[in-house]
Amino acid sequence: MKPLYRFIKTVNKYQLPYDLKLTSGESLATPEIAYETYGALNNDKSNAILICHGFTADQYVITKHPITQKDGWWDGLIGENLAIDTNKYFVIATNVIGGSMGSTSPCTINPETNDYYATDFPIITITDMMNAQLGLLDFLGIDQLLCAIGGSMGGMQVLELARIASSRVKSAIAISCSWRFSAQNIAFHEIGRQAVMSDADWCHGRYLSHDNCSPVQGLSLARMIAHVTYMSEQSLQQKFGRNLQEKGGFSYHFDTDFQVESYLRHQGSTFVERFDANCYLYLTRALDYFDLTKNSLDAEDAQHNKSLADVYKDTQTKFCLISFTSDWLFPPAEMRDIVRALNVIGAEVSYLEIESDKGHDAFLLNEPEMIEAVKGFLDGIATETQ
Amino acid sequence: MKPLYRFIKTVNKYQLPYDLKLTSGESLATPEIAYETYGALNNDKSNAILICHGFTADQYVITKHPITQKDGWWDGLIGENLAIDTNKYFVIATNVIGGSMGSTSPCTINPETNDYYATDFPIITITDMMNAQLGLLDFLGIDQLLCAIGGSMGGMQVLELARIASSRVKSAIAISCSWRFSAQNIAFHEIGRQAVMSDADWCHGRYLSHDNCSPVQGLSLARMIAHVTYMSEQSLQQKFGRNLQEKGGFSYHFDTDFQVESYLRHQGSTFVERFDANCYLYLTRALDYFDLTKNSLDAEDAQHNKSLADVYKDTQTKFCLISFTSDWLFPPAEMRDIVRALNVIGAEVSYLEIESDKGHDAFLLNEPEMIEAVKGFLDGIATETQ
Repeated sequence: MKPLYRFIKTVNKYQLPYDLKLTSGESLATPEIAYETYGALNNDKSNAILICHGFTADQYVITKHPITQKDGWWDGLIGENLAIDTNKYFVIATNVIGGSMGSTSPCTINPETNDYYATDFPIITITDMMNAQLGLLDFLGIDQLLCAIGGSMGGMQVLELARIASSRVKSAIAISCSWRFSAQNIAFHEIGRQAVMSDADWCHGRYLSHDNCSPVQGLSLARMIAHVTYMSEQSLQQKFGRNLQEKGGFSYHFDTDFQVESYLRHQGSTFVERFDANCYLYLTRALDYFDLTKNSLDAEDAQHNKSLADVYKDTQTKFCLISFTSDWLFPPAEMRDIVRALNVIGAEVSYLEIESDKGHDAFLLNEPEMIEAVKGFLDGIATETQ
Repeated sequence: MKPLYRFIKTVNKYQLPYDLKLTSGESLATPEIAYETYGALNNDKSNAILICHGFTADQYVITKHPITQKDGWWDGLIGENLAIDTNKYFVIATNVIGGSMGSTSPCTINPETNDYYATDFPIITITDMMNAQLGLLDFLGIDQLLCAIGGSMGGMQVLELARIASSRVKSAIAISCSWRFSAQNIAFHEIGRQAVMSDADWCHGRYLSHDNCSPVQGLSLARMIAHVTYMSEQSLQQKFGRNLQEKGGFSYHFDTDFQVESYLRHQGSTFVERFDANCYLYLTRALDYFDLTKNSLDAEDAQHNKSLADVYKDTQTKFCLISFTSDWLFPPAEMRDIVRALNVIGAEVSYLEIESDKGHDAFLLNEPEMIEAVKGFLDGIATETQ
């Protein structure tokens, strides 16, 4: 079986005219960045908003996904007359390098070998993702974004952008994320990676070069694990509880007796159609390595932890941070760490902790309080700018 | 590779002289129950305490484990002059049916086929486990236990015993458990089962009949997933945080950079030595099916949910319930449901919610408050009995 994502060709791309220097010390030869834009850039190029996507999402924020045919993943937040109003703002959404929707990644061709990168792809970091996106902004002639916004891995991208290039991002909205990946986060990722890599059909990473090879079972398992962490216990309980698939009662077999089992298997099996297993490995690793207080291209700097306040010491960026009470992947307490640090240095920050039982995925579920907060914050920034 | 558990022969066993009728409607031909006893039964047989073990534990509560050579898993609680004093009490610890330390299970021989039961083993429930143990109590001539005590799956066994045979258990101590398995619990189990069953070396369940076959990778993965749920986020963070294996920094590979990765892999790889993969499947299923308000041998009764208060309506058992604040596998709120129900019917119940950051596994970690509570409760019961 060939997963569907391998047949997507029509993707808008920009190729960096230089090799991208990576955190690891390696470099990536003239990587391509797949992206979509919505709305129009104004004359003084001051109305650009960068949307940073979560782990397995992509650039299709408000247009139909070419594989799943689903609506854009943030189309309740972005669009004409919505909080991020495409009548007013120029919206840029890229696929991160390492992602599987067109940007240079383990599932694209390595120009040196003319074969898929696969596991020859270098390990990348969130820093690298942002440096690539800064290259795209250079190309578009955008010196300063009005705002960068994202949730989950997207939120971490936003925080990282404000760290490495504060002057290029007037405001930053980071949602449902943290300043570093916790031990529990790393643990779940490691299990997901083991699931993929122990699947014989992973073929030591070279499955794309074989016709009938794809680690669908391993990747599906990894997704099932991750999916549980995206929901709260309450939301799983409310949605499924102990409801059975068949009214007749237990099967007394290992069938999917419970609706929650069936739901998870479905999540796993549909995911493998749209996402590359090696990309999954690389993006989990990029997340594991994320730590605002440590990750740095400066080797000496990387030896000691800075405080979060030091990290943003001279920041000119205005922050809006949002978290959800039932998010156990990135508990609000970790977001509050950032708020405190920004307060210490007198940076501008607004923080909203939204009461929700929907867990980590709440940021994707059109929570009215989140949408209102984003709109209000953006309107304020835009007014200042005029 | 043959896992070590397959070479354990010297186990104390009692074989039920009848077939065990199971919840599923099937029956299990004259099952054997492996058990250990400590201390001496008094003349009126009134000092017996049944220890019910957690999911992957066994009868070796205070004696060295024959495979791992580790000390007994509850030897901080049970022993001479300890809370469960073997100078005073007669302690019985069985291996549940379906467990892999000697009781009849998927990894024992099916007398009908002379081959391993493997997936021919019938699905069992917590009810079935307790009916088997009641058979052992009959054999030992014990009409009424002074107490049944257990944590996690052991706690559920205790609650189930009090439900199906209140007159045979004077007091019940249930720790770190719930009155039913939640959607999130079932979800994690389903993922673990998929990990095992998608391992090609599971051989459709018949791996024990093949010399070089054992789903070590799948079972190891399942254990890694489960292990994360046994610890709290805080305990993982305190124990490992983002500490690296090598001081030099990130490897920029998929090696075990972080100590938590290495720790988890170790947990997985040592587990497969001592536990059978099919037993893992069957015991997870037994837990999934656990719901005090529904599970019943009475088919009509199984159609509608009773309230917890109804379940224990005429109980004569005295309850002591203990939970730990950071247990997210069985949150204290679920234990409080039981307390409230017992209060409604005027049953005797004491409840202790212990402040701890050690997560679900706290009940295995010699928490002084837990030990003191067990001792106090037991002393009270024993005094009444004299």
